Amino acid sequence: MKLLEERILKEGQVLPGDILKVDSFLNHQIDTELIDCLAEEFHRLFAQEGITKILTIEASGIALGYATAQKFANCPLVFAKKGQARNIGIDVYHALVHSYTRDEDLEIFVSKKYLHENDCILVIDDFLANGKALSALADIVHQAGARLAGCGVAIEKAYQPGGKLLRDQGIRVEALARISAMNEDTILFE
Amino acid sequence: MKLLEERILKEGQVLPGDILKVDSFLNHQIDTELIDCLAEEFHRLFAQEGITKILTIEASGIALGYATAQKFANCPLVFAKKGQARNIGIDVYHALVHSYTRDEDLEIFVSKKYLHENDCILVIDDFLANGKALSALADIVHQAGARLAGCGVAIEKAYQPGGKLLRDQGIRVEALARISAMNEDTILFE
Repeated sequence: MKLLEERILKEGQVLPGDILKVDSFLNHQIDTELIDCLAEEFHRLFAQEGITKILTIEASGIALGYATAQKFANCPLVFAKKGQARNIGIDVYHALVHSYTRDEDLEIFVSKKYLHENDCILVIDDFLANGKALSALADIVHQAGARLAGCGVAIEKAYQPGGKLLRDQGIRVEALARISAMNEDTILFE
Repeated sequence: MKLLEERILKEGQVLPGDILKVDSFLNHQIDTELIDCLAEEFHRLFAQEGITKILTIEASGIALGYATAQKFANCPLVFAKKGQARNIGIDVYHALVHSYTRDEDLEIFVSKKYLHENDCILVIDDFLANGKALSALADIVHQAGARLAGCGVAIEKAYQPGGKLLRDQGIRVEALARISAMNEDTILFE
C-alpha cells in the first residue's frame, strides 16, 4: 500500500537490533487518518469473509484493530491480554508469545466468553516479523473452534520467517507494506 | 450518560476487591458503536478547547483514546507505554503509577518527540478510581509544558478519592458514568 510505504520511508527509523521505529504514526503516536485508511484496506480485502470479530493483542495492535472493527458491521474488537490479570477470571484461552522487543516469554489470554465456534475471526496486528504473536492468536482462534479468515498486518518484515511460517500453515496473511531489506540508510519494499 | 449507565447495569459484574468487570464492551471485548458514542460525547464536552492531542495509557485506554482522537481535526493519539521498552529511546517523560489491579508500581513513558509546549492535551482513560494513572498522565503533560484541557473517563468510581484529588488540583474531569456505590447486587449512579 503506497500510502503506508511512503510514510515508512518518510518517518521510519532503522535502529540497531533490526528494529524499525515507526512510533510517530503507528505504535506510540497514532495518526488516526492513516490508521483509518489501513483499516479500510483490511475491510476491502476481507469483506467477503463474513467476519464477526477482530482479534488483536495489547497494546500496539489495539488502535489498528479497533479501526478495522469499525469497518465491519456488528463486529467487536477483542484484544488478548498479556500476563494473568487478577480480574480476567480463569475461564480463558491462553498461549505463549516470545517478545523479541522485550526479550521475554509472555502468556496471553482471551476470555472464553468472547470467542465462539460460530465466529469468523480476522486477526490484526501492527507488525509481522517472527510470527510469534500471530501464531499465538491463531492458536487461540483454533482453541475456540472458530474460523480464522486470516491475518492482517500493517508491516511485514518479509525477510524474517514469520510470514512463510503462517502461510505454510494455510493461513491467509495480508501485509500492507512488505519490507524485503532494511538498514540505517535504506528501506526496500517487495 | 444514560447509554453507558444502562450498559453497565446490563453487563457489568461487581467482583470481590471492588472490581467492576465491564470487559464485555469496554476493556477486553470492545463494542465499537458504544465507544464511538462515548468519543462523540468527549468531543462535545471539549470541542471549544483547541485540543491538539489525545493522551492515554496502554492498554485499555487505547480504543477509547483512538475513537476520541478521530473526532477532533488533526489530532493524533499518543499512548503512554508501561516499562522501559528497548526501542523507545531515552528521551522520554516518565512517571510512576500504582496499579491496584496488578498490585505493582509501573513506570510509564512518553517520548518527548510527541508532546510539546504548544500542545493542548485531552487525557482519556477507561476508569477513574484512585486517580493514579490520570495523575501520572497529567504530570507528563506538565513536564512537557503543554496545556491540560482536562481528563475524560468512561467510568468514575465516585466513592473513591481519585476524582476529588484531580478536581482539587483544578483539573477538569468529565466522567460519562459516575458510580456512587456498588456491590454484588446493585450499582448506583450519582
